[in-house]
Amino acid sequence: MIYGHGDDLYRYKDMVRANFSSNIYQKADMTALKKHLADRLDLIANYPEPAPLSLERALADEAGVSTENVTVTAGATESIYLIAQDNVRRLGSGGFTNVIMQPTFSEYADACRLSGSPVVSNPAEAAGRRVNWMCNPNNPTGSVIPARDLLRMADERPDELFIIDQSYEHYTHEPAVSDAEAARRPNMILLHSMTKRFCVPGLRLGYAVACGETARRLKGLRHPWSVNALAIEAGLFMIGSKAEVIPALDGYLGEAQRLRRCLCGIEGISVSKTFTNFMLARIKGHTAARLKEYLVKRHGLLIRDASNFDGLDGSYFRVAAQDREADDALVAGIREFVDTHNNYKSDEK
Amino acid sequence: MIYGHGDDLYRYKDMVRANFSSNIYQKADMTALKKHLADRLDLIANYPEPAPLSLERALADEAGVSTENVTVTAGATESIYLIAQDNVRRLGSGGFTNVIMQPTFSEYADACRLSGSPVVSNPAEAAGRRVNWMCNPNNPTGSVIPARDLLRMADERPDELFIIDQSYEHYTHEPAVSDAEAARRPNMILLHSMTKRFCVPGLRLGYAVACGETARRLKGLRHPWSVNALAIEAGLFMIGSKAEVIPALDGYLGEAQRLRRCLCGIEGISVSKTFTNFMLARIKGHTAARLKEYLVKRHGLLIRDASNFDGLDGSYFRVAAQDREADDALVAGIREFVDTHNNYKSDEK
Repeated sequence: MIYGHGDDLYRYKDMVRANFSSNIYQKADMTALKKHLADRLDLIANYPEPAPLSLERALADEAGVSTENVTVTAGATESIYLIAQDNVRRLGSGGFTNVIMQPTFSEYADACRLSGSPVVSNPAEAAGRRVNWMCNPNNPTGSVIPARDLLRMADERPDELFIIDQSYEHYTHEPAVSDAEAARRPNMILLHSMTKRFCVPGLRLGYAVACGETARRLKGLRHPWSVNALAIEAGLFMIGSKAEVIPALDGYLGEAQRLRRCLCGIEGISVSKTFTNFMLARIKGHTAARLKEYLVKRHGLLIRDASNFDGLDGSYFRVAAQDREADDALVAGIREFVDTHNNYKSDEK
Repeated sequence: MIYGHGDDLYRYKDMVRANFSSNIYQKADMTALKKHLADRLDLIANYPEPAPLSLERALADEAGVSTENVTVTAGATESIYLIAQDNVRRLGSGGFTNVIMQPTFSEYADACRLSGSPVVSNPAEAAGRRVNWMCNPNNPTGSVIPARDLLRMADERPDELFIIDQSYEHYTHEPAVSDAEAARRPNMILLHSMTKRFCVPGLRLGYAVACGETARRLKGLRHPWSVNALAIEAGLFMIGSKAEVIPALDGYLGEAQRLRRCLCGIEGISVSKTFTNFMLARIKGHTAARLKEYLVKRHGLLIRDASNFDGLDGSYFRVAAQDREADDALVAGIREFVDTHNNYKSDEK
């Protein structure tokens, strides 16, 4: 695991008034869920189901696939580690190469390396079978590969495995691969994040969807009770009540595009094109680390220093759009940083 | 993972009025913790620390060891899987043998097999280096190896690794190995369960204590955010408030011995000697599965069918003492089962 993931709010505690550092909408209305959990706190006193079958059933019913296809884990991250482990057990550590285009979520490469299998970012360098890890929408860039292209790739290259992390699927208008499409392909695994869908990263809740044979192996590798009883309860409640806590996408993604335009309007700031709520930005002549410290200390605004993503340098940072007011504060804060530091530089001459 | 762990309360829902199937005291007063968590439910909306450092610090301070020695995990079970994985990475899957005396907690052998390393129950059959997994007090037998014997073994056999699961240490008068004793031995790892100490199995919270080098490797294998934010908060609260939720041991273990004597007084029931709150029992002429169904359906009393422990047959069951009233109900229920079924058999003749 790397040090320096986003949402390092716990480091800054009460200093932060707006958090752009995680890719999750921060003002979701959690009232109903919190009330429900407060009423069910007795759950802490007994073991959860060793395997979270009730939640797997609810997710399968919702998606129109079989419970056998669904593996619920402690966040999508646990699924990533189980898949990396399964690949080595099934294919042998020398029998395949993990292909991971950079920059992307660092845990794919970490999990593969820990399990003892090789990782390349250039597909041409892959030896043996290819195992492709893809984050779609991609963290941290916000880029999206169309679902039909992913399905075509998987069908044209049946000897390769495609692991598609759709953690941010609820934060984009671009179509995602469906669970049914993944469940009937032996060479595809979909990852989903309830963390992102329901804005509950503190609970650790995600799942993998795959064909029955793959899912059986993943369930066999998962250790018992890996998902906490309150997390299971929260998942059941949110799905059962058809909860939607992310703002309506038209407005929210419109706000993300507005934020992008505003940031692009600041001298020395460039921002990649994004199809989701977060975006990868770059600051010229300064480090993202310094910008981050300035924003959190002066203004209580927390951004993600993205310099520890493989392939990125110290100038990169990532922000997730929040609401107009918070986003305006961010734009003003970054503009102030740039102005102050550029003036300061001018003064120095 | 095996199917059929104890505390399968979720299967029986509202049928159960007393639960003897888990080794945890069921009437612990959780009021203060539940109030605290209800006040802190906002924690679900942000990522926990990627590695639960704040809790590792609190545990280290309490035990007088360094934070570097402590690895907090999602239950002691996650520690077991990390250790099994680490052994294979470090020693090679053919370079050592796991020695696991049976019957004991099934996850040691499961984790070792999943990681690809051999398991024997007879030490004489071990090839290469020995890795000894010991549950102390032992689940399901309630037996205890004195701490001084464990330390002597570890010191006399420096080429072997000793993994000592002290999950039930707070449920016995027998002395346990201290964290400081484990931290200074390169060939020892201690496992602890906050689940059992604080009676919160629904939260998933445990930890391993080892020398700095071993702990560093375990932390490196642990995936980020494996421990949920509410579990971390519960641990900090319980340690910070010096909470003690298990009943005073003199009374509670006295009650366990009373339960054992009462059970031994029933015709056809035998019970192993125990040094803790739970005990392994055997029923003659019937299966534990049938006894379990009878007790839960007729009386709402849930016991642990222990027949799926390696080395035990269908006649074994395990119960954890509760309070006098519940225990008396259990004794009466088992007596009724035996009487009814023996009479029935006589009628059949």
